[in-house]
Amino acid sequence: MQRYEHGGDIYANPHVTLDFSVNTNPMGMPAAVGQELLSRVAEYARYPDPACRELRAAISLHENVPQDWILCGNGAADLIYRLCYAVKPRKALVLAPTFSEYERALEQVDCQVMYHMLKADNQFALTSEIEKQLIPGIDMLFLCHPNNPTGRLIQADVMGHILHRASENGTIVIIDECFLDFTDGLSAKQYLNNMPTIVVLKAFTKMYSLAGLRLGYLLTADRTLLDKTSNAAQCWSVSVPAQIAGRAALTSANWPQKTRRLIAEEHHFLSEGLCELGITVFPGDANFLLLRCKIPLYELLLQKGILIRACENFRGLDWSYFRVSVRQRSENNRLLQAIKEIIRG
Amino acid sequence: MQRYEHGGDIYANPHVTLDFSVNTNPMGMPAAVGQELLSRVAEYARYPDPACRELRAAISLHENVPQDWILCGNGAADLIYRLCYAVKPRKALVLAPTFSEYERALEQVDCQVMYHMLKADNQFALTSEIEKQLIPGIDMLFLCHPNNPTGRLIQADVMGHILHRASENGTIVIIDECFLDFTDGLSAKQYLNNMPTIVVLKAFTKMYSLAGLRLGYLLTADRTLLDKTSNAAQCWSVSVPAQIAGRAALTSANWPQKTRRLIAEEHHFLSEGLCELGITVFPGDANFLLLRCKIPLYELLLQKGILIRACENFRGLDWSYFRVSVRQRSENNRLLQAIKEIIRG
Repeated sequence: MQRYEHGGDIYANPHVTLDFSVNTNPMGMPAAVGQELLSRVAEYARYPDPACRELRAAISLHENVPQDWILCGNGAADLIYRLCYAVKPRKALVLAPTFSEYERALEQVDCQVMYHMLKADNQFALTSEIEKQLIPGIDMLFLCHPNNPTGRLIQADVMGHILHRASENGTIVIIDECFLDFTDGLSAKQYLNNMPTIVVLKAFTKMYSLAGLRLGYLLTADRTLLDKTSNAAQCWSVSVPAQIAGRAALTSANWPQKTRRLIAEEHHFLSEGLCELGITVFPGDANFLLLRCKIPLYELLLQKGILIRACENFRGLDWSYFRVSVRQRSENNRLLQAIKEIIRG
Repeated sequence: MQRYEHGGDIYANPHVTLDFSVNTNPMGMPAAVGQELLSRVAEYARYPDPACRELRAAISLHENVPQDWILCGNGAADLIYRLCYAVKPRKALVLAPTFSEYERALEQVDCQVMYHMLKADNQFALTSEIEKQLIPGIDMLFLCHPNNPTGRLIQADVMGHILHRASENGTIVIIDECFLDFTDGLSAKQYLNNMPTIVVLKAFTKMYSLAGLRLGYLLTADRTLLDKTSNAAQCWSVSVPAQIAGRAALTSANWPQKTRRLIAEEHHFLSEGLCELGITVFPGDANFLLLRCKIPLYELLLQKGILIRACENFRGLDWSYFRVSVRQRSENNRLLQAIKEIIRG
């Protein structure tokens, strides 16, 4: 069985009553999704639509991207592996720190992985420094926008330069925007039309709290790459409930807008509170915060039934880094109170 | 988007009122499964347990196999691809005709695929003839027990000889037993203990009509192979509803026994009825029948809203072969009546 490296493992920690390690929407799942799932259980007995026809039509409208540029998967993580199996890159560049599944997926195809180290003393910002490493022979580049676990967006001019350089070299760029809708950041999908070597990755997991249902998708104008990625797995990878939930989620009016307002407010509240407690909070825009402090926060909070993400296993970070999600006010208050108790003994 | 090659595509045929192309349990989903799914929708917002701990414990009891010999997947088809990605066989042997996903998955790792042709004049039985092709250098062998679309079980002595020969050569044998519980056939899992190169593949898809939820598992004593197969995909491949449904399914007392009684009776009824109409019915034991006739049955039944499986795209078969599932008496009668109308004009 593979070693588990991520947040959200409440199954190994059954006494946890408050999970700040997972980055899903603090408002939970839209009510319309739950209702659809309840009323259509009988359909789970059927094979899913292998082409996800109705779901792709809904995503096409939502993203304003042609249907045949869309491939759905069993969560965005499924598509990361399938892209690697489809492309079989020999050399790839990933950020550090970042979501570890890019590296794990690349290792499955025996790819040589190069790292672009983001620096704490530059607040983990991605700068045009990375262009020095974007040389011919790099088959694939993974960007995470905003980056996990730092929460940093990529500035528009930096993104533009990276994508042009990559395009010149024929480097396929996978831009993971699973957290972008929590922010005011600009999507790289604006480049899809002119740059066929770009793949934008998105998920329902976080924004609609559908983590348990597994639903993600990619957008690309490269039909050959899309077909190869589709072929790199069974044809029934997206379940019936995932397809039903995805369509219902997209009918929830203003859900992303409401979420963004909540996150902006609570991001500010939680950051301020943590700073007041003497904890370093790195600047970021996502629905989670990267923290640094010299006390064993993970263990001490776990004793109080609160799970946060220890960041020691992120390449480039160490035991003093932690990630907490931005949640509802009452929960954020509980976290702050618990840390206060720890610090003040 | 990949070309769809299987039964059950009611999405492309929305006017179909009766689906004989899909091989799921004609009794549908056990009531207990539907109830559990209804009562636990709130849990779908969480990430699934990556290790499927509770589900594997239940499967372990059900199969009488140690928990750490079990790996769950997003349907059995998911595990077929992951096994190929994990082993990267250079040369493999598959039956013809058989389930086409073995060959498709092998092609993804650029494997040279050899075929053992089953013969219509021997009623598609697998005999010890196959041993001639089981030579050193064959890295992987896929068996389907009972075979899809023929419904033939592998005789116990033939199975024993194949597995011993494969074991001597270090050939990994994947035995797909997704339809075995519909029959009285003997599982190859009896060999797991002594032959670590054997993998038995099973699914909830067919017996419990969970096709839309995607849940399968493999059994193997080869822990290294199991770990490699686990690593050949994301860690969250089995959704929360699939894990819930799987556990609930295994609590449904006597479900497989009831199903076997129904299938045995209706298999006999449907075979007799089809024979009386002059259609060739090949002998088999599964919950589906392989037929041959010289009229374009697929198109003519589709005009009446009945979907059957045209078998032209199975290697070794042609347009005159069809597969129909064994269903409830009233449905079987509708099929027989429709064919009667076609034949008698």
